[in-house]
Amino acid sequence: MSMRNLYSYINENSEKFLQELVSLVKHPSISARKEGVQECADIVEKLLLKTGFSTKVIPEKNGNPVIYGELKSSDSEKTIMFYDHYDVQPAEPLDEWDFGAFSGKIHEGRIYGRGSSDNKGNIVSRVKAVEAFLKETGGVPVNIKFVVEGEEEIGSPHFAPVVKKYKELFANDGTIWEFGGTNYQGQPEIYLGLKGVLSIELKAKGASQDVHSAYAPLVPNPAWHLIWALCSLKNPDDKILIEGFYDEVESISKQDLELLRKIPSEEKKLKKTLGLTQFLHHSTGVEAKKALLYSPTCTINGFLTGYTGKGSKTVLPKDATVKIDFRLVPNQMPKEILTKLISHLKKGGFEDIEIIRQGSTEPARTPVNERLVQVVVDAARKIYKKKVVVYPTSSASGPMHLFRNWLGCPVVSAGCSHANSKTHAPNENLTIDGFIKGTKLMATIINDFA
Amino acid sequence: MSMRNLYSYINENSEKFLQELVSLVKHPSISARKEGVQECADIVEKLLLKTGFSTKVIPEKNGNPVIYGELKSSDSEKTIMFYDHYDVQPAEPLDEWDFGAFSGKIHEGRIYGRGSSDNKGNIVSRVKAVEAFLKETGGVPVNIKFVVEGEEEIGSPHFAPVVKKYKELFANDGTIWEFGGTNYQGQPEIYLGLKGVLSIELKAKGASQDVHSAYAPLVPNPAWHLIWALCSLKNPDDKILIEGFYDEVESISKQDLELLRKIPSEEKKLKKTLGLTQFLHHSTGVEAKKALLYSPTCTINGFLTGYTGKGSKTVLPKDATVKIDFRLVPNQMPKEILTKLISHLKKGGFEDIEIIRQGSTEPARTPVNERLVQVVVDAARKIYKKKVVVYPTSSASGPMHLFRNWLGCPVVSAGCSHANSKTHAPNENLTIDGFIKGTKLMATIINDFA
Repeated sequence: MSMRNLYSYINENSEKFLQELVSLVKHPSISARKEGVQECADIVEKLLLKTGFSTKVIPEKNGNPVIYGELKSSDSEKTIMFYDHYDVQPAEPLDEWDFGAFSGKIHEGRIYGRGSSDNKGNIVSRVKAVEAFLKETGGVPVNIKFVVEGEEEIGSPHFAPVVKKYKELFANDGTIWEFGGTNYQGQPEIYLGLKGVLSIELKAKGASQDVHSAYAPLVPNPAWHLIWALCSLKNPDDKILIEGFYDEVESISKQDLELLRKIPSEEKKLKKTLGLTQFLHHSTGVEAKKALLYSPTCTINGFLTGYTGKGSKTVLPKDATVKIDFRLVPNQMPKEILTKLISHLKKGGFEDIEIIRQGSTEPARTPVNERLVQVVVDAARKIYKKKVVVYPTSSASGPMHLFRNWLGCPVVSAGCSHANSKTHAPNENLTIDGFIKGTKLMATIINDFA
Repeated sequence: MSMRNLYSYINENSEKFLQELVSLVKHPSISARKEGVQECADIVEKLLLKTGFSTKVIPEKNGNPVIYGELKSSDSEKTIMFYDHYDVQPAEPLDEWDFGAFSGKIHEGRIYGRGSSDNKGNIVSRVKAVEAFLKETGGVPVNIKFVVEGEEEIGSPHFAPVVKKYKELFANDGTIWEFGGTNYQGQPEIYLGLKGVLSIELKAKGASQDVHSAYAPLVPNPAWHLIWALCSLKNPDDKILIEGFYDEVESISKQDLELLRKIPSEEKKLKKTLGLTQFLHHSTGVEAKKALLYSPTCTINGFLTGYTGKGSKTVLPKDATVKIDFRLVPNQMPKEILTKLISHLKKGGFEDIEIIRQGSTEPARTPVNERLVQVVVDAARKIYKKKVVVYPTSSASGPMHLFRNWLGCPVVSAGCSHANSKTHAPNENLTIDGFIKGTKLMATIINDFA
């Protein structure tokens, strides 16, 4: 069908769509602290119901509810699924936001707030793409399913049993993943895979109380103990020292390398945005792309011990905690990496350090020759009128493997963010233009997939 | 003179003295954050004035005021000085206090609150010992000077120029230092020296903003950088690896070793209090005493980077900060140690890490054969009716060297704390009995020194 009427509908209603996004951003939904998640799940369900979906709220055991939505097509047997999440990352450090972290402030063509880009903008744009079909054509050209979970930002710890249990309900012929957008040159970027992730917390304990630091020659310092353990995990060349950590890592395929070479270099702009003169180990060009997309990592996300206020305090802390995430590449399974980590710490004399597992997902990949990939690439070319950049994988993570490997459907990620969206950081934002183009992109994908 | 009337006066007025201490504890005076210091300085000055001292407020350039008090004797040419400080350590972690950190709560024979033991209890007990003389005899048997500073807990960064400038005013024949008390067996402990200290903060910087941890293969992580730097400072055997760090460290003298052997072992009780089954490196007996009093140290007091709230956050932090104190033994000068540290970091490729100096004092020692030592030992034996334990040095630090080395007077530390006073930790406290005995001890020292 001609998409002209749909695009017009989207243009004409863009202000209304934006206000719906503002109201969604204003609801904090921080899964790491279970803040506001139930309320946000309710809003998402209402959004789907209002649009015309039938919905189902799937309570996760010990977790946040998954919102499922379905809309049948009278024209097609095929089903397209949208995977999204209504939870967001914590907004700290709060004092580095120019506007309130949950203000949903609109300023100079952008909407600001935690979740604006990741992932609430995409939720709204996708639902609105469906609304455009319903309003303009009275139906949808393909069966449409939504699954919007509430724990993506903490590694989807309770999502796998849900996908297992609702395998039939979730069955689909192609899944559009939750993120994507445009690069610094405005070219649309789509992603065919994700790294895995294993998030953990390590906790070392010393005396039963904080002690005057004069006792340092006698009292074990858990901060030092933890730091020595960390130094045993990774050396200053960023080589991870856990025995067998790299055992399953594959070399890069020719096909992937070809895709990599086609990805435009955005090094200069990325460096400028991040205030860096060099990337780590001075990597550049294809080497930098390889590092970003094909290197597993071990990253300190946070470390806290003792006195961290102004000035000094001569204290010997009673405990120390570090948060770490490992990003994993195909064949590296979080479970196995955790086992290797436990054994590594034990061997190094760090068996007294408590390991708290906080979430994990496996790596996933969809081959570039899947039809869904071509549909998304063509749709993006039409909307953005620029060359489409295809990433064989993203450097980020999520429970894509549950769809790709368990449900067996192809999965492609595309969305309405942009290169300076500051995802996971202060001043996260989405451009209004990106939001509207993303909505049109989703409408086009629905149309072309059918 | 007979001390009986003075002891009676102290007994009869103990409740009043205690209330004065409560009111002093209730005034937070955290030098690390310049909280309430001026107000607390005013209270101390008023306490001295009310007692009969003439006072002088010495403004420290960029620092907190020093309160000086003087009371002439018509009977003696000699002068005894009391060194104290009205500032306190920060009270964090606040949620670990059973009563408010600045409540001054009296509970089961103890007063609780930050500063109760370190050092406000001693300030009040010393002033009240003088009050007893004035009320009971109409004068004091020896000239008495007080110097009460406001930055001891941050390494007295502005105190040295004050001592230099007021060398004549501060001149004395013997100084009683700010701390001391009884051990687990109720034996009085006195100290003839202090370790030096060098407090610093190290700050590593990465990108100009917090970044999504997916970028870890490209973006330097200041937390890792700082941790690698720390690992280069000290190994898991607690050996400090800075080149030349131990160069000036002397071996323990025979005289000191003799004193060490006389110090009763309180290992079991200290371990129990701290919830430890072993001291560091399983040291025990004389070896543990040697370690505590003669080892220089490098202690992490606090470390902060990234996200430290509940749950996980896949963030790559933009900076990381660690607070460290080095405790130094005789001949190790903070200035030289800092120079060695700077050179060490530079050599190791850590020259980009910012070093913020936060305060330092040099080590100091008074020989055991000084008359003042015998006066204090005899006075303590009279009051506590137990064997007096003489420490050749404390494991703690303070600006004692300014008095011992610059003014050239003997310095002995004695006070009213006890073995479980939890100095610098939550639930800091002082027993009422210790407070009253400490007041009698000070009166006896004044009497016997004259």
